[in-house]
Amino acid sequence: MTDSTTQAALGRQLMARLDEAALHSLPGPGVTRLFCSDEHREVLELIADWMRQAGLTPELDASGNLVGRNARALAGENTLILGSHQDTVAEGGKYDGMLGVALPLQALQALKEDGVELPYGVEVVAFGDEEGTRFQSTLIGSRALAGTFDPASLEARDADGVSLGDALEAFGGKPRDIPQLARKPESVIGFVEVHIEQGPVLEQRDQAVGVVTSLTGIERHRVTVTGKAGHAGTTPMAGRRDALVGAAEMVVEADRLLNATPDFVGVVGKLEVRPNAVNVIPAEVTFTLELRSPDADVRETGSREVLDACRRLAQARGLELEIESTYQADAVACAEWLIEALEGACQACHEPAERLFSGAGHDGLAMHAMTDIGMLFVRCKDGLSHHPDEAITAEDAERATRVLMRFLSDLEAA
Amino acid sequence: MTDSTTQAALGRQLMARLDEAALHSLPGPGVTRLFCSDEHREVLELIADWMRQAGLTPELDASGNLVGRNARALAGENTLILGSHQDTVAEGGKYDGMLGVALPLQALQALKEDGVELPYGVEVVAFGDEEGTRFQSTLIGSRALAGTFDPASLEARDADGVSLGDALEAFGGKPRDIPQLARKPESVIGFVEVHIEQGPVLEQRDQAVGVVTSLTGIERHRVTVTGKAGHAGTTPMAGRRDALVGAAEMVVEADRLLNATPDFVGVVGKLEVRPNAVNVIPAEVTFTLELRSPDADVRETGSREVLDACRRLAQARGLELEIESTYQADAVACAEWLIEALEGACQACHEPAERLFSGAGHDGLAMHAMTDIGMLFVRCKDGLSHHPDEAITAEDAERATRVLMRFLSDLEAA
Repeated sequence: MTDSTTQAALGRQLMARLDEAALHSLPGPGVTRLFCSDEHREVLELIADWMRQAGLTPELDASGNLVGRNARALAGENTLILGSHQDTVAEGGKYDGMLGVALPLQALQALKEDGVELPYGVEVVAFGDEEGTRFQSTLIGSRALAGTFDPASLEARDADGVSLGDALEAFGGKPRDIPQLARKPESVIGFVEVHIEQGPVLEQRDQAVGVVTSLTGIERHRVTVTGKAGHAGTTPMAGRRDALVGAAEMVVEADRLLNATPDFVGVVGKLEVRPNAVNVIPAEVTFTLELRSPDADVRETGSREVLDACRRLAQARGLELEIESTYQADAVACAEWLIEALEGACQACHEPAERLFSGAGHDGLAMHAMTDIGMLFVRCKDGLSHHPDEAITAEDAERATRVLMRFLSDLEAA
Repeated sequence: MTDSTTQAALGRQLMARLDEAALHSLPGPGVTRLFCSDEHREVLELIADWMRQAGLTPELDASGNLVGRNARALAGENTLILGSHQDTVAEGGKYDGMLGVALPLQALQALKEDGVELPYGVEVVAFGDEEGTRFQSTLIGSRALAGTFDPASLEARDADGVSLGDALEAFGGKPRDIPQLARKPESVIGFVEVHIEQGPVLEQRDQAVGVVTSLTGIERHRVTVTGKAGHAGTTPMAGRRDALVGAAEMVVEADRLLNATPDFVGVVGKLEVRPNAVNVIPAEVTFTLELRSPDADVRETGSREVLDACRRLAQARGLELEIESTYQADAVACAEWLIEALEGACQACHEPAERLFSGAGHDGLAMHAMTDIGMLFVRCKDGLSHHPDEAITAEDAERATRVLMRFLSDLEAA
């Protein structure tokens, strides 16, 4: 064998690293690692170690990203950016995010040990926050690199009232210097992220990896339905303006429309009732409505249908309705040359990888504003993510690492 | 005039007393006065004063009730019990409960000042807790008098973890002596409660007062719908087991059945979603279902239909369903002789009072186990209660006081 590590060893080491990273978590179940937390600080020490072993020089940037650069990147040569996020949802898993940090470092280390020297700059980034669990605000780190950072997001506050800016400052970041992190697009080759699929497609296709064609567009709304409270025993049924009955009709109708429309997914994930008492007619219900499609037209038409239905249902019950759009990210396409390069690497590794789209958002949504993006998905068990039971196999980890190694060694200096 | 007070003065004094009682509240809006709180202690001093002015001797009993007795009651003669509760819901109004304490005392004081001596024992009770706001457990005081007190309720805890038993002891009650408060049914003439209607019927009829025929039966259930969490972007719509969509169908169907059935009212007042995140398919929804009817058959049939519909809807979506019955109080009828006596008093006062049933529960639900009950409802603005804007007019207060005075003076010693 010419490889410095056997096939099995590479996957095993990667899984061991992911297990070790998962120890840096708030008490279980699962992994909870928030932006600018003690656990964030601890896990960056571990990742900095992996970076050094891969021949990279680690540095904490002003936005809380840990960035590892090879000598060519440090020298200012054109650079390929790899990476993913270190943070998790509350009670999440070991792989969402961290796989995309650990796997490229494993691949770079193996290439280095095999004596391969890449003819271009390489950066691996452990983005500080993609999930937005602590501050709701997301993609701070990737927006910083893309040059689309919004200073207003520093005002976001966590459940304890701590502002993102203050938390970042205490963490060692430099909120005021974030705008200077924006990369020059002409010196960036592209951004490639490895991520668990978070869906069932690869499992259904019996494939270890898949090449992503586009990231879904997402919009989120906060819908507030206002009716009239009243004593639930003494107010006749006729003439009630029960905000929960109205909101429930909206939830059911949104689900019906979503099921009836191909390439359109969505959810009412959060719903709160006021005053929320056993014997009081609900006066107000607030719920979130999230809608996604990789096709902008599908999302636009579908969104209009769902929101129109909400308005119709509110009117029929004499309820007031307020719809606030809280988030929107257009679908973004992966670069055809990166899709083909990743497919080529799969074929060279005898991986029957097919194309698929990503139903989830990722750091690529932000990076796309600055550079070409590509994504490699890794099969996960039962399509499950954002859950303590999130799982991949050591064999798939190995196979995905081999694909990325091939992609990296086939890529020519731009 | 032979009356010691003019018509207007009686209503004005009663409203002034209710305003003063409302000052004993946690900070606003509205009135929040919890069982065994500082505000409870303060308001009892005020009520004790009113009792003395009405010729009654006040005493705090073992269960936290303030009981005022006239000389005949103290001497052991057969006794009519009047009264209502001192406690409120969170951010409630000035009249729900307190009207039924202040009005009888006002009436008794006016009769005394008019030189009328009633030929039977009279007790006015300010029950400690009917709303159950602090400990969820309700009707402690009326159950004590009725002899149906359950010592297990002393274990109920408030939001700070304080047990009802400890709070009562600190308040000056004697938890261990509560069973001795049970009255001998043969020495009790009946229980009469004055209360705001908490509904729109009297306002619609343009009547100041109404005579209650029965108190509604109530049942409450806690329904838990369990599905499967998942990433809201990457899980295809087909095959989702979204607990909120299922629960929403149940809310809509329950409302449809309630509207389709005469004399049947109910509500899903409280609903909570887990994990309640914008981008996670709801895994579990818990909601309360409250159903009421003055007719036991209507409630039984209706309840079966609603719960069967929930089971059917859960099954159709592959959701698990758990239904826990948390409360049940059968409808109780007011005594015909008390209904007629109250109607007679209304007629004598030229009040066109009609009969109506109570959609709310009251202390009478407990007292009914021990003695005959009767209730006089007073019109309230917009049928509103459990709200800071709860309101009655001074004129209606006056008219209701006159009716009760007539009822008391017409009642003969039993």
